[in-house]
Amino acid sequence: MARSPHNTFPEIPLPDAFDTDRAKGEQLREILEAMAREQPPGTLLPSERSIAERFQVARMTARQAITDLVTRGLVRRVNGAGTYVAEPRLTHGTTTGSFSHDMRLRGLEPGARVVSLGVRPATELVSQRLQLAEGDPIVALHRVRTADGVPIAVENTHLSANRFPGLADLLADDQSLYVILQEHWGVQVATAAHRVSVIALDETDAELLEVPIGLPSFVIDRVAYDASGSAIEWGRSRYRGDRYDVEFDVHPS
Amino acid sequence: MARSPHNTFPEIPLPDAFDTDRAKGEQLREILEAMAREQPPGTLLPSERSIAERFQVARMTARQAITDLVTRGLVRRVNGAGTYVAEPRLTHGTTTGSFSHDMRLRGLEPGARVVSLGVRPATELVSQRLQLAEGDPIVALHRVRTADGVPIAVENTHLSANRFPGLADLLADDQSLYVILQEHWGVQVATAAHRVSVIALDETDAELLEVPIGLPSFVIDRVAYDASGSAIEWGRSRYRGDRYDVEFDVHPS
Repeated sequence: MARSPHNTFPEIPLPDAFDTDRAKGEQLREILEAMAREQPPGTLLPSERSIAERFQVARMTARQAITDLVTRGLVRRVNGAGTYVAEPRLTHGTTTGSFSHDMRLRGLEPGARVVSLGVRPATELVSQRLQLAEGDPIVALHRVRTADGVPIAVENTHLSANRFPGLADLLADDQSLYVILQEHWGVQVATAAHRVSVIALDETDAELLEVPIGLPSFVIDRVAYDASGSAIEWGRSRYRGDRYDVEFDVHPS
Repeated sequence: MARSPHNTFPEIPLPDAFDTDRAKGEQLREILEAMAREQPPGTLLPSERSIAERFQVARMTARQAITDLVTRGLVRRVNGAGTYVAEPRLTHGTTTGSFSHDMRLRGLEPGARVVSLGVRPATELVSQRLQLAEGDPIVALHRVRTADGVPIAVENTHLSANRFPGLADLLADDQSLYVILQEHWGVQVATAAHRVSVIALDETDAELLEVPIGLPSFVIDRVAYDASGSAIEWGRSRYRGDRYDVEFDVHPS
C-alpha cells in the first residue's frame, strides 16, 4: 500500500459549540463518523485524550464515541498502536446475485471453505422452506465464505437431493453452487426472499469467523426461487456485523 | 386473552436419530424453532432438563438452544416461571410506508414519545445526506417509537427547516410527520434508501428501549426522497434486535 498507515486526521473542524439539546457523545460520534468516511483506510485517529481535550468532553465520552465506530466497523483498534480508519464495509444489496458476484464487484477474491457436506433427511423447518415432505433427502452444505481470504460469513445451504441428483459430489470438487445449477440443470435464481435478524455470535460461529464470541452479527435467512416460482435453495447465514451491511430500497405503495 | 398461557408443547416429534455430521445443538435449535413458530404466544416450553432428557443431550446444549431462540425473540424467559413462545416479531419490509403504517397493518397501536425536538445547524453528515449546505437549519426530531405502548425503536430524524418552515411547531403538537408533510406541503415519500448495520445497544438507547445494555440490535439509516428525487428526510434509528426483523426480496440482474 502506497499510503502511509500513519497519516493523522487533518485539523478537526470543531463546531462553534455543541448543541445543548443533544448528548455530546452523539454529536461527537457524528463528527468522527463523517471524518472516518472521508479518510483513506489506515489513517490514524487522534487519541482518546486529544479528542477529549479538543472537544472538551470526558475521556469516557470520547472512548464511547470511538467504540461505536469500532462496533460499526468504520475504524479498528490495534493494540498499543492506536485506532485506524478501517477497510470499507461489505454490502448486501437488492441486486445481489451471489456472494461470489458481490465480492468480485468490489475487487475482492471470493472463497469458500467447506465445513461439512452431505445428504440427510429434511427436518420440518427445511421441508417447509423448500416445499418438500419431511424426511426427503437434502443436500446440506456448511461453508465459511471469505473475501481475499478473510472469513466474512458462515453459511448453511440446503437443496433437494431428488431434484439435483449427484449435486453433493459436484460440490465436493469445490465448484460454485450457482455455476453447477446452471450448467447441469439449467436452473437460475429468479428471485430470493430474505429475512434478516440480529444475534450475538455463538462460540462455534465466532471461531469459524475468527472474531470474538458475542459479536453482534446478522442472521440472513434466504429462500431462492427459479423462474417458475419453485423453491430451489434454503440457506441460513451468519454475517460478521463488524464488516457487513445490508442495503435495500423501499417504495411505499 | 382466551388462550391459556400455560399450554405445554405437544409431544415432541423426536427424530429417529440426530445426524452424526452436524452439531446436536444446531439440530435441536431447528426442532425447537419449528415448534415455537407453530405454537401460539404464551405456550410454555418444556424445561431445559426435560429437553435434555428427551433428546439425550447435555443440559448446556439444551440451554444454548433455548438461549438462541430467546436472542432471536421467538421465546422469552420469565424468571422462575419458565420459557414461553413470544409475541410475533415485527418486520420491516420493502413496502414499508412508515412505522405507524406497519404497526397498524399488524393490529398494533403505533405511538411516539418525543425525547427532543429543535432546529439546529446541519452537521457535515446531515448536510451530505440531505443535499444541503453545512450549517443550514435542520429540524431534528428524536423519538421513541412504540407498538401497543412497548418501545421498539429510537429514531433520530432530520429535515430541512428552510424547505418545511414551521415544521418543528407542528411536530410539537404530536402529529404524524408524514401526515404533516402531506397536508402542509403536499410532499410524499416516493422511495427510501435503507442501510442496515448491527450494534450492541449503548446505555442511553438501552434505557430508552427498556432492554439490557449491549442487546444486539439494528441500526437503520434511511434517506427518503420525493417523486422528483429530492431528499426530504434523513433518519438513523436503532431497532430492538429481539423484536424486529428486516425482510426484502432480491432479483439478481
